[in-house]
Amino acid sequence: MKIITISREFGSGGRTVGRLVAEKLGIPFYDKELVEQVALETGFAPKFVEEHGEHSPGKSLFSYAFAPQGVPGVMNGMSTADFLWHIQCGVILQLAEKGPCVIVGRNADYILKDRQDVFHVFIHADNDFRAERIVRLYGETEKSPQARLLEKDKRRRINYQHYTGQTWGMSQNYDICLNTAKIGVERAAELLVEIIQGVE
Amino acid sequence: MKIITISREFGSGGRTVGRLVAEKLGIPFYDKELVEQVALETGFAPKFVEEHGEHSPGKSLFSYAFAPQGVPGVMNGMSTADFLWHIQCGVILQLAEKGPCVIVGRNADYILKDRQDVFHVFIHADNDFRAERIVRLYGETEKSPQARLLEKDKRRRINYQHYTGQTWGMSQNYDICLNTAKIGVERAAELLVEIIQGVE
Repeated sequence: MKIITISREFGSGGRTVGRLVAEKLGIPFYDKELVEQVALETGFAPKFVEEHGEHSPGKSLFSYAFAPQGVPGVMNGMSTADFLWHIQCGVILQLAEKGPCVIVGRNADYILKDRQDVFHVFIHADNDFRAERIVRLYGETEKSPQARLLEKDKRRRINYQHYTGQTWGMSQNYDICLNTAKIGVERAAELLVEIIQGVE
Repeated sequence: MKIITISREFGSGGRTVGRLVAEKLGIPFYDKELVEQVALETGFAPKFVEEHGEHSPGKSLFSYAFAPQGVPGVMNGMSTADFLWHIQCGVILQLAEKGPCVIVGRNADYILKDRQDVFHVFIHADNDFRAERIVRLYGETEKSPQARLLEKDKRRRINYQHYTGQTWGMSQNYDICLNTAKIGVERAAELLVEIIQGVE
């Protein structure tokens, strides 16, 4: 297995698992880097790509409102979300061609589903574990941690459903799914490295 | 973790994974044994329990038609499927009280979801892998292997949805989900033993 995609519930530690796996295997880790490359190719601000790349289910309030500067006509009548999706697919397919890597989020499991050399991971955890974790890592906000989890998961679920036609978090879409509340974030990374090294 | 529940797609090797895990951990393995105990308690034939214990979604052609002999009035107006479900819940709760064990199928993940000492596993695999496997293990029938997979999975899915209100195979219902087509049946059992031994 050369390429590992990691999909994750918000606050489950999936991003950390991905970073640790990439470090242990000595291969590139794409998360912010992917966002930056999409931003570069589209002319959108990285923050905008990060917020909308996994979140906008097709048409939204933002649709058509933010044509990137300097690339007139490039959106070809697509909504902003569809345009981002289109570019993101291209970037992920290119990254996979470059060699072994770990890609977090961005529906990469679906985009790379026809390649045989990809191992697909989904990381999830109980709400209490995730709520405690997001407050510790990202601090308090005016919304309750539970509400933040629900909102972010919902946006990812809708985006995934819209662009892939599949159900987000359905085990059959992945080679392994892990509950980090039970197994632990660091232990999950160790196990994945062991499993991936054993798979031809 | 004292108790392990294994849910599985038909033909994925989940039953074999469960048997191997139980052997390696030196704990009882409940599959046919569970069926036999339900049969004993209900007065139904074991074969009937096996076929309907995971398959009948509430009311069906069989509902109310097979009141067990010798236990008049025991069904209390419940359908046959609801009666089997009720007895099956009781048997699984009792088995869990007896000590560490592996329980395959029968929606045991849901029935034992409130216990903290249970580790929940879902085993799935690509259709081609499963089709080849069921023909090798159970032989050819007049139905195609693909049709047999679809039918059996559908019955398990409907039964699970009906009695648990949850979606069968949704990763969040389990602590780990594994694709045996990618990881291998024997390797999956080894990994599970390693993981379960490391979880408190």
